[in-house]
Amino acid sequence: MKTKAAVAWKAGAPLTIETLDLDGPRPGEVLVEVMATGICHTDYYTLSGADPEGLFPAVLGHEGAGIVREVGAGVTSLKPGDHVIPLYTPECRQCKFCLSRKTNLCQAIRTTQGRGLMPDGTARFSLDGKPVLHYMGTSTFSNFIVAPEIAMAKIREDAPFDVVCYIGCGVTTGIGAVIFTAKVEAGANVAVFGLGGIGLNVIQGARMVGADKIIGIDLNPEREAMARKFGMTHFLNPKDHPNIVDAIQQLTDGGVDYSFECIGNTTTMRQALECCHKGWGQSIIIGVAEAGKEISTRPFQLVTGREWKGSAFGGARGRTDVPKIVDWYMDRKINIDDLITHRLKLEDINKGFDLMKAGESIRSVVVY
Amino acid sequence: MKTKAAVAWKAGAPLTIETLDLDGPRPGEVLVEVMATGICHTDYYTLSGADPEGLFPAVLGHEGAGIVREVGAGVTSLKPGDHVIPLYTPECRQCKFCLSRKTNLCQAIRTTQGRGLMPDGTARFSLDGKPVLHYMGTSTFSNFIVAPEIAMAKIREDAPFDVVCYIGCGVTTGIGAVIFTAKVEAGANVAVFGLGGIGLNVIQGARMVGADKIIGIDLNPEREAMARKFGMTHFLNPKDHPNIVDAIQQLTDGGVDYSFECIGNTTTMRQALECCHKGWGQSIIIGVAEAGKEISTRPFQLVTGREWKGSAFGGARGRTDVPKIVDWYMDRKINIDDLITHRLKLEDINKGFDLMKAGESIRSVVVY
Repeated sequence: MKTKAAVAWKAGAPLTIETLDLDGPRPGEVLVEVMATGICHTDYYTLSGADPEGLFPAVLGHEGAGIVREVGAGVTSLKPGDHVIPLYTPECRQCKFCLSRKTNLCQAIRTTQGRGLMPDGTARFSLDGKPVLHYMGTSTFSNFIVAPEIAMAKIREDAPFDVVCYIGCGVTTGIGAVIFTAKVEAGANVAVFGLGGIGLNVIQGARMVGADKIIGIDLNPEREAMARKFGMTHFLNPKDHPNIVDAIQQLTDGGVDYSFECIGNTTTMRQALECCHKGWGQSIIIGVAEAGKEISTRPFQLVTGREWKGSAFGGARGRTDVPKIVDWYMDRKINIDDLITHRLKLEDINKGFDLMKAGESIRSVVVY
Repeated sequence: MKTKAAVAWKAGAPLTIETLDLDGPRPGEVLVEVMATGICHTDYYTLSGADPEGLFPAVLGHEGAGIVREVGAGVTSLKPGDHVIPLYTPECRQCKFCLSRKTNLCQAIRTTQGRGLMPDGTARFSLDGKPVLHYMGTSTFSNFIVAPEIAMAKIREDAPFDVVCYIGCGVTTGIGAVIFTAKVEAGANVAVFGLGGIGLNVIQGARMVGADKIIGIDLNPEREAMARKFGMTHFLNPKDHPNIVDAIQQLTDGGVDYSFECIGNTTTMRQALECCHKGWGQSIIIGVAEAGKEISTRPFQLVTGREWKGSAFGGARGRTDVPKIVDWYMDRKINIDDLITHRLKLEDINKGFDLMKAGESIRSVVVY
């Protein structure tokens, strides 16, 4: 079949809209009509050429929502008409990782996914007979995609695609880090470094579970109003508090119980660890650092009880937890509407990247 | 009263045996006759001058066992005749730290303890009217000591002082890191960096809880036999395996579930983290690094699910957990006898340090 898609031909070049050939689903796979997709910083990271694992030409996009249109042989958990969110972190429920009960990082299709291919080692997109690669196993910048059954979260049918697509990455990454990775408890004090899309979702996750002080840290004072709306109780601008670790410790009688680094800067990662309370404070790294950068601290920080962790896709198991987060949105426990600042047609997708780079959007969504 | 004690007069000098004046217990304090004390690397660290917080003159020693001889006003949990292990990490059960349920690092008397003083700000040792400082709140290189009630673990009376004194530091630090900090579960794979006194106790802690592979790493091949006796299942010498992280991952299908750094070297701390299994591996720093040294890694190690932690006094609450460990020894669940390689008189205490420096002892114990 044919599908309209935005194709990334090479690092740094704008996407172009193409009509690609798409092979149908093979055993264990489904064909999904993508109804909406967010444009995420990770797409830009790859498009910019900074991602050392980036491959071209490819169909980017990993934050979508859509409808199953066809299922391959052996697919049992999905049928045509089901509403789904494609998962860049699948959940096979069979591999060592899924069965460990300790991680969401299912490795069932990791190798082929990293090479831009389906699990059978082929690309299903092509143009003029030449393959175009998949991206993160999702490629939601295409109107139709093929992906494995294990990489689809089935969601309720009354959820709006142009909002819940954001649960495919940013919302889950932020809220999940609070709930699934850190397991923040009611009454805890929390620090959030970076008040972009991820940081705002960390904040509303902390509010949802009843955190006490929710301290936001950002160099941009314009972020304060929105963050307060999502639950931030205290704002600290490092321009006003050069010793940000000390400022946070002063505000919390010794440090926060949990901190979250949502920037991807190794200096703030260290600050996020060191502003934690002696004895039990945990720091969770969410942001992706530049290739080659390293984090450092004195081991004394850990020996005196701080813990350094990370979170990927919010520690959420895609098929199990993503539908719950959709419920939380539908029940108004979390706010996604205010985070989606722009809606665009696929033809205007490059404008979405421009808005992101200019800091004018929180999230732009392409509606097919 | 008078007490015989080994006094450290200045960094780098041998201890000298002196007869000191000792003031009796004040409210909330007890007088203890120390019956035996281990000689630990931490005593040497301070004596050598490498400890930036070391103070002189002082009575070192922090790994003792003895008998309460007198109690001050208001002491309710101890009486003369009780057998005790002095605690350099007290357990007041009242402070924010004790009440957090998340740490063993009671801070009730931290400030004065760090200054070599009792909680009322005085030193109780003196010679010719000049004060001699306490050390770690314990000073077990003195035959008699005064210390707060909250810094004494009451233990069973049939436990031999010259063995269970080692539970006052080394045994608890190693076994506790496994049981209280990491909470290693049956079937887990474990790596232990450094097969000295702490490492051997980590190994037997891992065996006690039913760990599967227990991998010991040490440059000294002579450590292998003893470590196997304590439960080590695999020995890796970095001289034979220059890429020790890779060797451990090969042996464990991707990495260990828990690793323990018992050396105090920031390079092995990094290796200990990176040899952990993706998704859930935890690395616990026990060793004390040189002042100013820092640990580093790529944040990707944490974002993909590894956790970096530390452990002090094995995460054990002194008054609550130390008596349990004494029971484990008496029930033959753990072996301490084979770790105590030398018994000395107080007059020969400097020989104990010489044996340690020469690597000839695992633990030397002074018996009063």
